Amino acid sequence: MTRSVPDAFEGLDPLVDLVQAFKRLPGVGPKSAQRLAFHLLQNDRQAATALGQSLLKAVAEIQHCARCNNFCHSQVCSICSDTRRNPGLLCVVETPADLAAIENTQTYRGYYYVLMGRASPLDGVHPESLDWPKLSERLGDESVSEVILATNFTNEGEATAVFLTDRIRRLGLKVSRLARGVPLGGELEYTDPSTVARALLDRRQLGNNDF
Amino acid sequence: MTRSVPDAFEGLDPLVDLVQAFKRLPGVGPKSAQRLAFHLLQNDRQAATALGQSLLKAVAEIQHCARCNNFCHSQVCSICSDTRRNPGLLCVVETPADLAAIENTQTYRGYYYVLMGRASPLDGVHPESLDWPKLSERLGDESVSEVILATNFTNEGEATAVFLTDRIRRLGLKVSRLARGVPLGGELEYTDPSTVARALLDRRQLGNNDF
Repeated sequence: MTRSVPDAFEGLDPLVDLVQAFKRLPGVGPKSAQRLAFHLLQNDRQAATALGQSLLKAVAEIQHCARCNNFCHSQVCSICSDTRRNPGLLCVVETPADLAAIENTQTYRGYYYVLMGRASPLDGVHPESLDWPKLSERLGDESVSEVILATNFTNEGEATAVFLTDRIRRLGLKVSRLARGVPLGGELEYTDPSTVARALLDRRQLGNNDF
Repeated sequence: MTRSVPDAFEGLDPLVDLVQAFKRLPGVGPKSAQRLAFHLLQNDRQAATALGQSLLKAVAEIQHCARCNNFCHSQVCSICSDTRRNPGLLCVVETPADLAAIENTQTYRGYYYVLMGRASPLDGVHPESLDWPKLSERLGDESVSEVILATNFTNEGEATAVFLTDRIRRLGLKVSRLARGVPLGGELEYTDPSTVARALLDRRQLGNNDF
């Protein structure tokens, strides 16, 4: 049995509760949870208060955009409200963090749709559990002409992409997927064989002005 | 420059604040802070609320024992209030976590004094900044006959122990230090040379009934 706090503090409920709450964070085990709780109470109560208040404020104020599911604090997020973007492109991602990864490239000027999940048949999450009606409503917007599937290249992300491709094609829309290949700065010697195989398969013919 | 949140969320203050607050935890860098904040908001808002409330409750309710500085929620902690302990022994530790480590051995039945810090001359923390008047008042308790210095065996802990040994001896009290040596289950081949040297130096003569 793993104790969450040492016996010496067993009666001290607020401490026990705090350690338990830290343990629910991803990647935080019993030892780290105890270390974090002790550190804050011993050395940095200001940081503890700041974190406590930020958590409650974020939970209360951060909503999901009605149009794309991205984080926002109003009805519609700043990206969906930006009329200078290209309404023909819709990029489908799994999470707001993935959306951020694409925004950080500063090369995409279309809109997004955040699935807030992925199909994961092994965990019993079937593609049908994704909110397809909401996405299909978004796709009903006549200006959308191409859907870029930017789900992750994991088993779950690929399963999700396969499912969505099928559905979106039936709507008569163009579907594309992010390119797979050797990452920038990648050395073939240290790249896994499936990635190299995919890069071979998807090789691109070079024109005269390609470099 | 490290951005704390992706550009895509720059206007979203509660999210930015939450990421900043996570970054103040020890061992949490910008990437982990963002991952924790996103995870909680995407997948586990209940855990976020629980952690937020626990933090504020712990900060509000957990005090330090007036007698030994250990964590407690009343004036005096449960260990100091336990009259079955041996009042002749006082164990001095750096933090409540160290106190817990000794309590967990279930072999010590004296009282404690938690320094809530250590001397760290390299960081400009001189031994004088430890609350010596409070400790000396505690030592003024006539029943204390031996002080066990259980500060860590780091440079800082040793510096603290040296300083305290000198002061406590002047009060005419017996001072002892935890034994150093090869840890249980330790193999000489893999033990660092200074530890082996110390174990040699502090070797113990065996009596007939020692095993």
